[in-house]
Amino acid sequence: MCTTSGCAILSDVSVILRRGNCCTANGFRPFTHHRFSQEMRIAHFVVKEPMVIGHECAGVVEEVGAGVMHLSVGDRVALEPGVSCWRCRHCKGGRYNLCEDMKFFATPPVHGSLANQVVHPADLCFKLPDGVSLEEGAMCEPLSVGVHACRRAGVGPETGVLVVGAGPIGLVSLLAARAFGAPRVVVVDVDDHRLAVARSLGADAAVRVSPRVEDLADEVERIRAAMGSDIDVSLDCAGFSKTMSTALESTRPGGKVCLVGMGHNEMTLPLTAAAAREVDVVGVFRYKDTWPLCIDFLRSGKVDVKPLITHRFGFSQRDVEEAFEVSARGRDAIKVMFNL
Amino acid sequence: MCTTSGCAILSDVSVILRRGNCCTANGFRPFTHHRFSQEMRIAHFVVKEPMVIGHECAGVVEEVGAGVMHLSVGDRVALEPGVSCWRCRHCKGGRYNLCEDMKFFATPPVHGSLANQVVHPADLCFKLPDGVSLEEGAMCEPLSVGVHACRRAGVGPETGVLVVGAGPIGLVSLLAARAFGAPRVVVVDVDDHRLAVARSLGADAAVRVSPRVEDLADEVERIRAAMGSDIDVSLDCAGFSKTMSTALESTRPGGKVCLVGMGHNEMTLPLTAAAAREVDVVGVFRYKDTWPLCIDFLRSGKVDVKPLITHRFGFSQRDVEEAFEVSARGRDAIKVMFNL
Amino acid sequence: MCTTSGCAILSDVSVILRRGNCCTANGFRPFTHHRFSQEMRIAHFVVKEPMVIGHECAGVVEEVGAGVMHLSVGDRVALEPGVSCWRCRHCKGGRYNLCEDMKFFATPPVHGSLANQVVHPADLCFKLPDGVSLEEGAMCEPLSVGVHACRRAGVGPETGVLVVGAGPIGLVSLLAARAFGAPRVVVVDVDDHRLAVARSLGADAAVRVSPRVEDLADEVERIRAAMGSDIDVSLDCAGFSKTMSTALESTRPGGKVCLVGMGHNEMTLPLTAAAAREVDVVGVFRYKDTWPLCIDFLRSGKVDVKPLITHRFGFSQRDVEEAFEVSARGRDAIKVMFNL
Amino acid sequence: MCTTSGCAILSDVSVILRRGNCCTANGFRPFTHHRFSQEMRIAHFVVKEPMVIGHECAGVVEEVGAGVMHLSVGDRVALEPGVSCWRCRHCKGGRYNLCEDMKFFATPPVHGSLANQVVHPADLCFKLPDGVSLEEGAMCEPLSVGVHACRRAGVGPETGVLVVGAGPIGLVSLLAARAFGAPRVVVVDVDDHRLAVARSLGADAAVRVSPRVEDLADEVERIRAAMGSDIDVSLDCAGFSKTMSTALESTRPGGKVCLVGMGHNEMTLPLTAAAAREVDVVGVFRYKDTWPLCIDFLRSGKVDVKPLITHRFGFSQRDVEEAFEVSARGRDAIKVMFNL
Repeated sequence: MCTTSGCAILSDVSVILRRGNCCTANGFRPFTHHRFSQEMRIAHFVVKEPMVIGHECAGVVEEVGAGVMHLSVGDRVALEPGVSCWRCRHCKGGRYNLCEDMKFFATPPVHGSLANQVVHPADLCFKLPDGVSLEEGAMCEPLSVGVHACRRAGVGPETGVLVVGAGPIGLVSLLAARAFGAPRVVVVDVDDHRLAVARSLGADAAVRVSPRVEDLADEVERIRAAMGSDIDVSLDCAGFSKTMSTALESTRPGGKVCLVGMGHNEMTLPLTAAAAREVDVVGVFRYKDTWPLCIDFLRSGKVDVKPLITHRFGFSQRDVEEAFEVSARGRDAIKVMFNL
Repeated sequence: MCTTSGCAILSDVSVILRRGNCCTANGFRPFTHHRFSQEMRIAHFVVKEPMVIGHECAGVVEEVGAGVMHLSVGDRVALEPGVSCWRCRHCKGGRYNLCEDMKFFATPPVHGSLANQVVHPADLCFKLPDGVSLEEGAMCEPLSVGVHACRRAGVGPETGVLVVGAGPIGLVSLLAARAFGAPRVVVVDVDDHRLAVARSLGADAAVRVSPRVEDLADEVERIRAAMGSDIDVSLDCAGFSKTMSTALESTRPGGKVCLVGMGHNEMTLPLTAAAAREVDVVGVFRYKDTWPLCIDFLRSGKVDVKPLITHRFGFSQRDVEEAFEVSARGRDAIKVMFNL
Repeated sequence: MCTTSGCAILSDVSVILRRGNCCTANGFRPFTHHRFSQEMRIAHFVVKEPMVIGHECAGVVEEVGAGVMHLSVGDRVALEPGVSCWRCRHCKGGRYNLCEDMKFFATPPVHGSLANQVVHPADLCFKLPDGVSLEEGAMCEPLSVGVHACRRAGVGPETGVLVVGAGPIGLVSLLAARAFGAPRVVVVDVDDHRLAVARSLGADAAVRVSPRVEDLADEVERIRAAMGSDIDVSLDCAGFSKTMSTALESTRPGGKVCLVGMGHNEMTLPLTAAAAREVDVVGVFRYKDTWPLCIDFLRSGKVDVKPLITHRFGFSQRDVEEAFEVSARGRDAIKVMFNL
Repeated sequence: MCTTSGCAILSDVSVILRRGNCCTANGFRPFTHHRFSQEMRIAHFVVKEPMVIGHECAGVVEEVGAGVMHLSVGDRVALEPGVSCWRCRHCKGGRYNLCEDMKFFATPPVHGSLANQVVHPADLCFKLPDGVSLEEGAMCEPLSVGVHACRRAGVGPETGVLVVGAGPIGLVSLLAARAFGAPRVVVVDVDDHRLAVARSLGADAAVRVSPRVEDLADEVERIRAAMGSDIDVSLDCAGFSKTMSTALESTRPGGKVCLVGMGHNEMTLPLTAAAAREVDVVGVFRYKDTWPLCIDFLRSGKVDVKPLITHRFGFSQRDVEEAFEVSARGRDAIKVMFNL
């Protein structure tokens, strides 16, 4: 286990975090970890040499650069993991998550945050208020995925929301949809345990479905019945042909489907029928400008992420190995937290 | 050949059009006609008994209802073919094209407009100014498809536009994109003749592609080179896995793909990669509130639809038969016009 | 007291409501009533002959037209008071509240709903679920003003909201902002009693201000301090130079001010300074498509309008006279309800 | 006349421009210059010691920092004058023109660009294509004001535009509205000469008005008649009670008024009547992300700014003095250009 993250030099507008940072590994579907450890690649990123992983992180400020005004030593902060260039068309156009030159924790060749020390730009370190723990702070990262999806899909107090897939991303999307005021949220999954978790986190209804495409028509009927009113927005938090088809077919004319999960790249879909009902497909990539809102959700109690933290580990070699094993076994684990 | 359309009774707020109405049949891809004549079904609409077809229409007012203020006998008008209910959530929400109870020309069981006489609500009859012919008026219908696509995709003076497919829908989309101020429009197709037509109608570049998916990566590179700058919006005016994949892969991060054509319902697509670049997919169903704009485009010369009218016929039995044959043969025919 | 409203003939798509309809008169600021009784004019509408007033109304269906499918005799319904033409550009463009030919309860020459019998288009009669009373149904009308303002101003879970003026419109705006998820709502008024009501209805802070423009700078500072974070949206629910100036100056750069109240037409305002911070001013006229959402807010308990009903009267001549007196005296009365 | 601008040190991501930069002084209404020279203050900015002015500027690159990839020595570039912090909520939220910590040419205490040498961040230096002169490049700045106004007001091919005031800002707004596809633009002013210029630059109609508020009703009628169709957007490019009232009253229900000019801060306006027709008021502050579009407009010929350059001067002491005199005399001068 390495002890520093990528860049170690403290610039004027950066801070160093040393003590107590917390990082999580993925749970139910230990997708990232699995990919890295087995194939060492995700999308077009290939890991060629040892790299620190981790991108869900909070910690305590130990040093501040001379130009940093809003943070002091001892402040507890949550970290937004991506450093954008602010020069490309996307940054200037207001969508910095699409930055052409993003440096992002644990995206090769940038080291991640699962380290004893992290140096990070101060404007990406968000102070946690009293009453919001470091663990909750680290959970701002996965919660941000749900928040960004809800923003892009326009979830609000008039939006009946379907969440397809009750893995970690599905669960944070459920929590975010609730916080955005969705009057009714239905969750579907193939697994009863996950559905029970979704129900305990506030889903109005949970519908068990099969992985088989042939069951689609029946399931869509059951899903619509479970909602009882129009499905205005569907969030596909799995990303397979079946889940996306479920989303497309269930959504009302003029509604939106947001593709949040990334199970498969290539999908076979009844897209034309959906498009002919003006059901739009909205993509999401990471998040932008979500930390203040997430922290406010945690502070006010609109979102409670604590039930998502199912396991906790220290930071010894043995702890880390066990943590990733627990995470990889899936099912019971949602988020596995390291406490330094 | 029948001589009246569906509803023959003149209500207070309707008009009767008798002389000189003009209707067109589809060209390059005589999709509707073909489907009707061969299989007698399109989507979930099935033709069970003889039905008047036609939905692209203009004519001269012969009678006006007592409550009609803005039209007089003798006025030349273009007809919007769909009568919406104004009671459902879509009508009230501002998207009447998604009306749950739409009555639409030539959509079973409603008769179409290819008739000697048509009775139609006056608010769907739009007066043509001097200098805009009945033929051009009838072309407002296909042009509306392009206009609605451009509106939904947000085409404007900052939008580099790719049009995939140079059939009639592709061509009206090209014309609409130009009229919406797109600074650069590239058109792709598998057919050199169609590409030549697209070029003659104002495409900045025309790229010949193959129908094979394996060529996609190469073609995307050639398409991008032809554009020379970002492709902000792609309009898939064909609607097949290959064309939609071309659109998805060519479009810049944060851009939009609009599915206008409806070749196949089920498509196999690299959707996740596109969504992860926040390339959204926007569906279109017909159009709403487009006639005034189309007529203004025709009046001002921003759009010239006359080159799309490749054949003209009278309205005798023999004419009609020949017209549909010409249309079905495709290729040379874009729009085949009947003049009564 | 008349016993029928304007149009008495039951068409195919209308219903008749006879028993139990409830109508309210305005409270704190009995603006409409006052204007009508004293000057008999509001804006460009002039009352020239006796007219039934009232536009906030619910009742029980007694007869249904042949074409009405979604309502039965005995259903309890809330009434949307405006019948739009569905033919003008605004209706077709999705903003039917701007209809050029609107027929609206109690807007001359159309009679209002404070009557023993009302005939109304069925699509403007919204069924009340069990647990939502007729009184609450009648309150959908004032609540709709707040809902429409929140929609136009884009209030959501990220919006700190300032409500200027705690009269009936201010209070429904406060309730609507809360239901739209506003994390923090501050209310200002010149009257301590009203501020206490606002606080009891869920305002996070209530700030007493003066009617004098000279106090503006000080007050803006106090208002901002009371909010503690950015004021993203201000709703001016009074409509005077002072209240609008308060809204403009308090709102953060890039925020919105929504002019909901209509105290004075001509205002003297520091508009340029606001515009130079890109604070936009958003107008609202009545509402569109708000009843289903209001009823859902009432059903789910997201909004509780019952505390706004401060007085109840029967429908005898004596009752009615007393009711309007109570309403005109203002202060204690918020909404005065008639129960037939 | 000083010879260097504010910051003289070349960082990694900056460039130095030495030869041939061109700066303009304001014309018709030499507002900034006048204010600075007479009162030495504008808004809350006070000039306390000698400061280089100028913010409309283009030049030739003489040195590039080590990290600059897209520019080489000898490139001709147009300069965006504001350096934003990329750390505040506005920068991250996509509206960097509202940056809380903007450094902007000639906004105290930052020196302006009217200098022999300017050091500037490379990402704010936009390469000019062949065929676009340095003078035209300098004009990107005023043109950007019109472009930003058109974007914020949503000007497009469906927007009838009224421009109130035919000074330099009015003229660039007219040019921008045309480039954004406005089908019809009407310009009003109190001065016949300016109206003639507007007509020569492409206004469809030019309406002479008085400075007196009493003439408003009459003038609105004449303006509407000149438009012939709805006024969807009005751009007030003067910023006085009379001009803003003209804009508010002329605009159709549901339209937008954009306040671009800044004549007076305090205005007396018929705002309620406008808001009750849902005419929104949109503010603009400078511009964001406009240079690429402006350069493309110049390259393609969609906008021709050359007629706006009415006077040219060298850069000697005598030249400069005469230039500002010409500019201050107003009327004939639109833009006065310095050529180094």
